[in-house]
Amino acid sequence: MSSDATMRAAVMHGHGGPEQLVVHDDWPRPVPGDGQVLVQVRAAAVNNTDLWTRQGAYGSASDPDAVAGWLGVPIEVPRIQGADVCGVVVDGPPELVGRRVLVDPGTYASDDVDAIPVAVMGSEYDGGFAEFVAVDASAVYDVSASPLSDEQLACLPIAYGTAMGMLERAEVAAKETIVVTGASGGVGLALVQLAAARLATVIAVCSSSASSTVLAAGATAVVERDRVDDVTAAIVDAAGRPADVVADVVGGPGFGAVLASLREQGRLVIAGAIGGPVVQIDLRPLYLRQLRLIGSTMHTRAHFATLVAAANAGTIAPIVAATFPLESIHEAQTAFSTSRAPGKLVLVA
Amino acid sequence: MSSDATMRAAVMHGHGGPEQLVVHDDWPRPVPGDGQVLVQVRAAAVNNTDLWTRQGAYGSASDPDAVAGWLGVPIEVPRIQGADVCGVVVDGPPELVGRRVLVDPGTYASDDVDAIPVAVMGSEYDGGFAEFVAVDASAVYDVSASPLSDEQLACLPIAYGTAMGMLERAEVAAKETIVVTGASGGVGLALVQLAAARLATVIAVCSSSASSTVLAAGATAVVERDRVDDVTAAIVDAAGRPADVVADVVGGPGFGAVLASLREQGRLVIAGAIGGPVVQIDLRPLYLRQLRLIGSTMHTRAHFATLVAAANAGTIAPIVAATFPLESIHEAQTAFSTSRAPGKLVLVA
Repeated sequence: MSSDATMRAAVMHGHGGPEQLVVHDDWPRPVPGDGQVLVQVRAAAVNNTDLWTRQGAYGSASDPDAVAGWLGVPIEVPRIQGADVCGVVVDGPPELVGRRVLVDPGTYASDDVDAIPVAVMGSEYDGGFAEFVAVDASAVYDVSASPLSDEQLACLPIAYGTAMGMLERAEVAAKETIVVTGASGGVGLALVQLAAARLATVIAVCSSSASSTVLAAGATAVVERDRVDDVTAAIVDAAGRPADVVADVVGGPGFGAVLASLREQGRLVIAGAIGGPVVQIDLRPLYLRQLRLIGSTMHTRAHFATLVAAANAGTIAPIVAATFPLESIHEAQTAFSTSRAPGKLVLVA
Repeated sequence: MSSDATMRAAVMHGHGGPEQLVVHDDWPRPVPGDGQVLVQVRAAAVNNTDLWTRQGAYGSASDPDAVAGWLGVPIEVPRIQGADVCGVVVDGPPELVGRRVLVDPGTYASDDVDAIPVAVMGSEYDGGFAEFVAVDASAVYDVSASPLSDEQLACLPIAYGTAMGMLERAEVAAKETIVVTGASGGVGLALVQLAAARLATVIAVCSSSASSTVLAAGATAVVERDRVDDVTAAIVDAAGRPADVVADVVGGPGFGAVLASLREQGRLVIAGAIGGPVVQIDLRPLYLRQLRLIGSTMHTRAHFATLVAAANAGTIAPIVAATFPLESIHEAQTAFSTSRAPGKLVLVA
């Protein structure tokens, strides 16, 4: 039991293994600064970013093997991670207190709604793997009216925000065919749901064990990468023609095969490389077929507002694979690293 | 001496070495079809495309090492190459006969001025390494009024057309900083001239022997790749900040270094890979820094019309390194492959 001045928190004390992450019962409770609110965390989802940041696996511009956070420099410690937060405002302007909110984890380069994020909650400042988090009042969005559960809402900011950013930056339109790699992952399932919602034809690449989940999420067809020899041919066969867009979060040895599934002037948008970041590409098809590779990270304020509207309307249905209490964060991260079950893992108060 | 029914022509008889290219004095003179004109060739420039197509070095989508032309399939032989033609109309509509013309080497996917080329003169149909060539009347542009010489005009269609396509597709704007690789090559010098003409700051990467030519063409600064250890640092130092755009025709081992010179949300447009087509890239900076890679091939009708206007206004000044008579095409191609002298080689009547 923590006093009013303290709280339970999972604190990262340095870059490294799980031993760098320690659950404290008496960590100082944050005090909101000017323009900030205090949010009591109800649910916080686990992301790759948490593990990679702790491991320092992002490299830097000059040295891909350097130990660094996502901005290419080591992050300051001690740090409370957790970018995906659904909670209730317990201190702040009266009109916000008591509201259930979703926290935008981005801090932006400017006030422009299209500005890119320059800092992320849980990396550059403390996040939601704790009982309380202090954030800018402008970062909280009222989701009291959403039919989604706290746990489902906590799935949205990073995974669905990233997916929304990818679809918007690739300008995916109705009736276009989009290939989604890693379709049973957090961003993958979000891509399938959001692309289907904009009436695109979704060809999902996933393992055969995840097919039914991915189809239920809205995929038109699946390519089971453990059951086909030629992924390129299987995609084109499933789509009936080469794809307009590839949304990739996998990279790795299969990168060339998905790139080859694009039609002339097709676009590939990439927001991750869980299958391996360093790939060989043949530049000839890139220029001869006039392809475009679009790098995408997270979302903008405009994307996030669109996402909140969808959450309140209930037009998306995030899948929660399992929940864990905060003190079981190590167990949750181990499950996250090893589980093949589709859906997100969420820490709950 | 050829009769009225024949002409001198350099004919490619198959994919392979120089022996596949034979100069005939009695090759059948083309007869213009419906909607075509007959052009007497005054000057025809030599391009990489001529050599690569003859060598079949483009590979195919399924096999990068396959012997194929630029469309990924072997081209039909016998074939007269030569995509860069300045000549005089000698048969066709009265308003065109006698006019000096530049031939658009593209045949397009549709009538749209933004349509992409689907066939190229000298590859899919006979080109200008001959005394005469028959082309669609819609492909000839009157350049009688241009202050440029026939030889200078023959430098434009492929090299300046490709450069114009790159700048337009990357949306290069005034005051932006653009890095041009291979800046002393045909496309490279065109990029420098055209980018400088739109008031961009041009950082040119070239060998020290070409520096003075490249600076005279309009580069703001040069990075001499034989004299600097760290090309990325040298570019950023010369520009005073990371670059907005990289226009690359080199690829190869230096690809990563120029890619790393881009600012966040920068774009790299690529239209060739003379330094090697298969490269390793790290996907992490691509997505974390939200870069874009834009594949570009040739030009559209809209780009070509803009180029012709510049030619007639005399605002560009192509550099002719040397001229050769048509019968010396082997010597010209050998010089093209081995010469380090900036400027284009042109075959003349």
